[in-house]
Amino acid sequence: MRPQIVNHPENATEHALEGLALTHPHLIAHDPVTGLVTRARPARDKVGLVSGGGSGHEPLHAGFVGTGMLDVAVPGALYASPTALQVQAGTVAADSGRGVVQIVKNYTGDVLNFRIAGELAEDEAVLTEVVLVDDDLATDRGDADGPGRRGTAAVLAVEKICGAASEAGAGLAEVAALGRRVAGRARTIGLALRAGTHPGAAEPAFVLPDGVIELGVGIHGERGTGRVPLADADGLIAHLVDPLAEALALTRGSSVIAVVNGLGGTSPLELSIAARATHHRLKDLGVTVARSLAGTYVTSLDMHGVSVTLLPADDDLLPLWDAPVRTPALTW
Amino acid sequence: MRPQIVNHPENATEHALEGLALTHPHLIAHDPVTGLVTRARPARDKVGLVSGGGSGHEPLHAGFVGTGMLDVAVPGALYASPTALQVQAGTVAADSGRGVVQIVKNYTGDVLNFRIAGELAEDEAVLTEVVLVDDDLATDRGDADGPGRRGTAAVLAVEKICGAASEAGAGLAEVAALGRRVAGRARTIGLALRAGTHPGAAEPAFVLPDGVIELGVGIHGERGTGRVPLADADGLIAHLVDPLAEALALTRGSSVIAVVNGLGGTSPLELSIAARATHHRLKDLGVTVARSLAGTYVTSLDMHGVSVTLLPADDDLLPLWDAPVRTPALTW
Repeated sequence: MRPQIVNHPENATEHALEGLALTHPHLIAHDPVTGLVTRARPARDKVGLVSGGGSGHEPLHAGFVGTGMLDVAVPGALYASPTALQVQAGTVAADSGRGVVQIVKNYTGDVLNFRIAGELAEDEAVLTEVVLVDDDLATDRGDADGPGRRGTAAVLAVEKICGAASEAGAGLAEVAALGRRVAGRARTIGLALRAGTHPGAAEPAFVLPDGVIELGVGIHGERGTGRVPLADADGLIAHLVDPLAEALALTRGSSVIAVVNGLGGTSPLELSIAARATHHRLKDLGVTVARSLAGTYVTSLDMHGVSVTLLPADDDLLPLWDAPVRTPALTW
Repeated sequence: MRPQIVNHPENATEHALEGLALTHPHLIAHDPVTGLVTRARPARDKVGLVSGGGSGHEPLHAGFVGTGMLDVAVPGALYASPTALQVQAGTVAADSGRGVVQIVKNYTGDVLNFRIAGELAEDEAVLTEVVLVDDDLATDRGDADGPGRRGTAAVLAVEKICGAASEAGAGLAEVAALGRRVAGRARTIGLALRAGTHPGAAEPAFVLPDGVIELGVGIHGERGTGRVPLADADGLIAHLVDPLAEALALTRGSSVIAVVNGLGGTSPLELSIAARATHHRLKDLGVTVARSLAGTYVTSLDMHGVSVTLLPADDDLLPLWDAPVRTPALTW
């Protein structure tokens, strides 16, 4: 039995959105009818940014609405894409006259519904561009006909960098191109010591035997790519950093932005230890960490685990990364 | 078996501090020899603020070092007070010529070691004042001879408000008086659905039978004041808000600052639901929530649970609460 702090499984995500908005009324507003989360004070005369997808990944995406990041988040039900009509409403709401970039994690339902929503929004004279985020290295099968890689925590980097560019006045095509570049180069891989538990469920989505961890987990309770023995923090993080460094062809002298992300039930103590291990492992490989984050950003309910996202730190990305941001879940 | 992301129990807190500093090099610095966490750029010509205590409560206190909050954090070992000599070093390091306020959670070892450290610091011509934080309503026995109430999450409010006053140029006596007023009026109570697990331990500090939760828990793995049946989020939060409202004599028209605090292993989804429940319960009681926070701030390792802190929102406190703050764990 794994009890949780919820009222009813049916209203968990709705209540969480309401709670987030009640906590941050100066930053965001939540419309209980449409489900949309918007900035408390909508931006004017800038390229709009909308993202969304299934809930269960809190604080994503609603927690990243605010100055320097998203204009609108479109939350679906738990692990389920929002409808095309919801996304259309969110896309139109994000428009202040200069078009809207839709940031979409690569899941079939999301991709389909954002595409339809984009067409519907264009019918309302809102120009749209799509940035597809498909960073999960665990699902990289090199198979052009398959569904491709899943979208996971790199969406935070895409939203941050596109948000900064849009805030600085970049045009629709420029913001979209930047987002595609970030999405194209960021890779993520995660591991779990315990799967997340659906509100109302008695047990986690999958149960691990003692002494093993699940490598390459997704953020929807899917099993990963394999199981490996539990190791110390340095050993666990090596399972993530090493394949990322290989996939990104990092070499001595490379420089990266690193995001160490808790998957929902990971304690701050553990996250800081994981951050240390990530820094040390990259240093051992000769890679410079230009910027890093460690926190709980893109979750799978209360999964106990961690993901690492690496993004090569091109010189032009750093000022955008460093630009001010004020959202419920990310502020500097 | 409850596995964790650690290297070795002996170095868990030290590695976590190193990881926090590696993640936020522009904000804080960690000295591995003294253990102290200081601002990356020490403040000048202001009242210094130092706090500390046992580790295992991350991000407290190191996560609250930075502009608008602490100057120095003195971390002890896991759940163990730092030594008087460590606190002395931290107190002296926090001084920029206008004296130092020591913010101390009410535990016997901390109180003793901060007192000795204050005397030693005065020998070095550093003026000190102590603010004792004893907010835990679960330990309020009305017994003047006992150890008094424990110090828990209200320490965040004391550090934030003293920090703002100190940054604004207030003098030593003024900052201390303000801290004492906040500490004197803030109350906290917490509950756990699962206790925290010591790094390296196989099981949580105490094990709850199915269907009950522990009410009035501390942040050191102590049992609480009693067990009550598991309820929905609204019911759980009522167990916290109602006794706080009574103890603070809140009435219709009262206004509070509310901190909804995750105890380490609580997911963001649950924390937002708890925040909603807190807002609703207070509204039902006719109490206005002037400001609120919901996050993981003062923990008991990876405890699955939540505490609520309420502080009457006096008019002069709100500008101090709203003043800018830039620390690893709290920024606005």
